[in-house]
Amino acid sequence: MQVYTINKARLWQSLMDMAKIGATDKGGCCRLALTDLDKQARDLYIQWAKDAGCDIKIDQVGNIRATRPGTDSTLPPVGTGSHLDTQPTGGKFDGVFGVLAGLEVIRSLNDHQIKTRHPIEISVWTNEEGSRFAPAMMGSGVVSGRFTLDEILNKTDVEGIRLGDELERIGYAGTEPVTGRAYKAFFETHIEQGPYLEAEGKMIGVVTGGQGQRWYDVELIGQESHAGTTPMHLRTDALTCASSLILAVQSIAKANKPGCGTVGFMQVLPNSRNTIPGKITMSIDLRHPEDQALTAMDEALKAKIEALEADTGVKIALTPIWYYAPIPFDPDCIAAVREAAEALDYSHMDIIAGAGHDACYVSDFAPTSMVFTPCLNGISHNEIESTTAEECEAGCAVLFNAMLTLAQIEA
Amino acid sequence: MQVYTINKARLWQSLMDMAKIGATDKGGCCRLALTDLDKQARDLYIQWAKDAGCDIKIDQVGNIRATRPGTDSTLPPVGTGSHLDTQPTGGKFDGVFGVLAGLEVIRSLNDHQIKTRHPIEISVWTNEEGSRFAPAMMGSGVVSGRFTLDEILNKTDVEGIRLGDELERIGYAGTEPVTGRAYKAFFETHIEQGPYLEAEGKMIGVVTGGQGQRWYDVELIGQESHAGTTPMHLRTDALTCASSLILAVQSIAKANKPGCGTVGFMQVLPNSRNTIPGKITMSIDLRHPEDQALTAMDEALKAKIEALEADTGVKIALTPIWYYAPIPFDPDCIAAVREAAEALDYSHMDIIAGAGHDACYVSDFAPTSMVFTPCLNGISHNEIESTTAEECEAGCAVLFNAMLTLAQIEA
Repeated sequence: MQVYTINKARLWQSLMDMAKIGATDKGGCCRLALTDLDKQARDLYIQWAKDAGCDIKIDQVGNIRATRPGTDSTLPPVGTGSHLDTQPTGGKFDGVFGVLAGLEVIRSLNDHQIKTRHPIEISVWTNEEGSRFAPAMMGSGVVSGRFTLDEILNKTDVEGIRLGDELERIGYAGTEPVTGRAYKAFFETHIEQGPYLEAEGKMIGVVTGGQGQRWYDVELIGQESHAGTTPMHLRTDALTCASSLILAVQSIAKANKPGCGTVGFMQVLPNSRNTIPGKITMSIDLRHPEDQALTAMDEALKAKIEALEADTGVKIALTPIWYYAPIPFDPDCIAAVREAAEALDYSHMDIIAGAGHDACYVSDFAPTSMVFTPCLNGISHNEIESTTAEECEAGCAVLFNAMLTLAQIEA
Repeated sequence: MQVYTINKARLWQSLMDMAKIGATDKGGCCRLALTDLDKQARDLYIQWAKDAGCDIKIDQVGNIRATRPGTDSTLPPVGTGSHLDTQPTGGKFDGVFGVLAGLEVIRSLNDHQIKTRHPIEISVWTNEEGSRFAPAMMGSGVVSGRFTLDEILNKTDVEGIRLGDELERIGYAGTEPVTGRAYKAFFETHIEQGPYLEAEGKMIGVVTGGQGQRWYDVELIGQESHAGTTPMHLRTDALTCASSLILAVQSIAKANKPGCGTVGFMQVLPNSRNTIPGKITMSIDLRHPEDQALTAMDEALKAKIEALEADTGVKIALTPIWYYAPIPFDPDCIAAVREAAEALDYSHMDIIAGAGHDACYVSDFAPTSMVFTPCLNGISHNEIESTTAEECEAGCAVLFNAMLTLAQIEA
C-alpha cells in the first residue's frame, strides 16, 4: 500500500491558531456552542476551507459541510469531521483536532495534486458537547434522525435562550435540509480522552465501536433522625445504604470487563452534620461494548437493589433514563484504519470509544470508524488536556490514507 | 417514701396554650430564639410564674429565673428548667415540657401547701436550639463558663442581626450577672428524642450522663475523569473511597456499643453524571458515653483512613473540629430520679442523653441529672413530634418528687 504524508507543522499551527479563539488563562479553551466565539471559530474555519478550494454548505441545524469535489459527481462523499465547540473548561484538541485533521487532509490532497473519484467532505457538527444546550451531539443526532429538527431548535440554555434563535443570531441557520445525507464512508479522528493508548504505549487506536450505555436516576428514602439519640440498630440511614450501592456499582463493572460503572452525581438530604440522612438522590452510569454484558450489568444492579432494600429497610427507586445500544462500526472502515496505521508503521491497538462521538450517530446511516490518538494522562474535558504535534500527525496521516482507500485515487 | 402528685390536666393545658405561640399548620411550632414569638412565649411564661408566686430575674444573656422561696434563704436553690425556643420545624414538647414541668412543680407545691428548706428555681435558658444563632445551648453555656458573655452577645444570625441587639429589642437583656450561680441540685425533664424508652416499653429514663462526641471534617481527593473512557482499574474515584469510609464509620460504631457513628453531611465534586468524582467533603460524628471507648473509635477511624489511602490512592484529610467529653451526672441526683420513679411505680431504665441539653452544661458547676419520657417513634426536631398527657404527667411527677428529696420539705 502506497502511503501519503500530511504537513505536521501546518496542522499544528492551525490547531494553535484556532485555540486562540476562547483561549483560557490555563491554556485551554472556552468556546461554548453558538456563542460569539463559536461564530468566530466557524468563520475562521470556513475561510481556511474556502482557501483550500472547498465548497461550503450550512444545513438547518448549523452543521457546516466543506466539500472537495471528486471526479465522479454521482458518487457519495467520503466524509470526516468533528466539532469546534468546547466544554466550559475544555482543551484545545477535543473535537477541533478532528475538524482540522479533515482540513489538513484536503490541504494535503492539494499538495499531492491527488484527484479522488468520491468527493471528500468535512463536517463541523453543531453542539457536540451539550454543555450550553443539552443533549450532546445535536448536529449529528438531527442528521441521523435520533432527534427531530424542531425539538433541537427549540432547546434553550440556562438563560432561556432558544437554540434556533442563536443559530440565526450568529448567521448559521442554514437552508440545506438535514435529511437525505449519504456517505460512502465516514471517519472521525479524535484524541482518546482516556488512558488506554498511553498505558499500552500505542500511537493509534483503531476504533471498532462505541460502547453501550444505561443511565439511571436513583432515589433512596430512609428515616431522617437524630445522630446522637438514634442507636445504630434502629436507624434507616439512606447514606450508608447508598454507600453500599455505590460499591456494588463498582463491583458489577469490575465483574464485567471492560465495563464501566460510575456514580458521578449525588445529593444528601437534609445534609446536616448531626442528622442521619433521610433521602439521597444519585445517578448511575453503566457502560459496556457488548449489549449482552450491559444487560447482565443491569440485571445485577436490580438484584443488588432488591437485596439492599430487604437488608436495610431503605426504599430505593431506580429509574432508567437513557439506553444507548452499543454501536459496532463498519468492518471495511475499521480495516481501512488498521491498514493505514500498519502501512504508516504506527503502533496500534483496537479500542472501543468510551464516550459518545458524532461518528456514533453518523454510523446510523453510513459505514463508519474512528481514529484515536493518545492524550496526556488520558485527561480531557479539562484545560490541561494535552497531546503532541507527532501524535496529531499520526492521527491525521492514518485518517488521510484510510479516506484515500475508500475515496479511490483517480489514476 | 411519700409521693406527691401533680395536676396532669393543668400541665397539658399549659403545654397546649404555649404551643399556640408559633403554631405551624402541621401541628408543630416555629419559635426561633429571640424573635417576637420567643418574646411572646417568655412573657406568657413569666405571667404564669408570677401568678404562681415566683420572683423573676433576667440575667445578661436573657436567661429567666423564676424562684419560689425556701424557708432558709441562705441555702442554694434546687433548680430545674429547659428552653422555650424551638427548631424552625420543631414540635410542641422539646424544651417547653421541661420549663412547664418546672412551673407545674411550683403550682403543685402551692396546691399541697408544701414549704421547702431550699428555694425552688425554674430556668428558661436562652437559645438552646442554636438554629437562629449558633452554637446551641448558649444560655446555659455562658452560665457554666463554656462561652464568654461577650462572644455570645456578638453572635449574628444569617441576616447579620446581633444576638445582643435582639435581646435588647425584645426586652430580655437583663442585668443579673451570668456568673456565680450555684445550685443544691439541678434536674431537667425532657422528651427522650430517641427510640430507646419506646422500644423497651419504659415510662421513665433515669439519665446517668451525656455521651461524649468527636466531630470531624473530612476531605477526599481523587482524580476527576471521564466515566466512559477511564477503565475501572485506572480510576482514583473519591466517591467509592468515601463510600467505604462511610460504611467503616457504621462498623466502628456497631463494634463499640452503644456508640453512634454518623455521616450526615456530604458534598460531591464536580457532581456531574458522567464524571468520576474527584473531590468529596463530608462530616463524621462519633459518640460514646465512655471516653475510653470514644478514643478507641477515634483510633479505629484513623487506622481505617490510613488503610483506605493505601488501597485506593485517594488522599484523605481528617480534621477533628470538636471534642466534647462524656458528662457523668451526679450519683445523688441520679438516685433521686430513680427512687422517685420507683416510688411512683413507673417502669424505668437508665439511659444516656444522646443529644446535648442545658443540663449537660449546668453539670459543670452543679450536681445534676435528667428525667426522660418517651416520644412517639423517637421523633423530635420535627413538627410531628408527639407525646401523651400521661407521659408528661409521669415525667413531671418524677421531677417533683426528686426535687423534693433534695429541697427537703419543711416539717
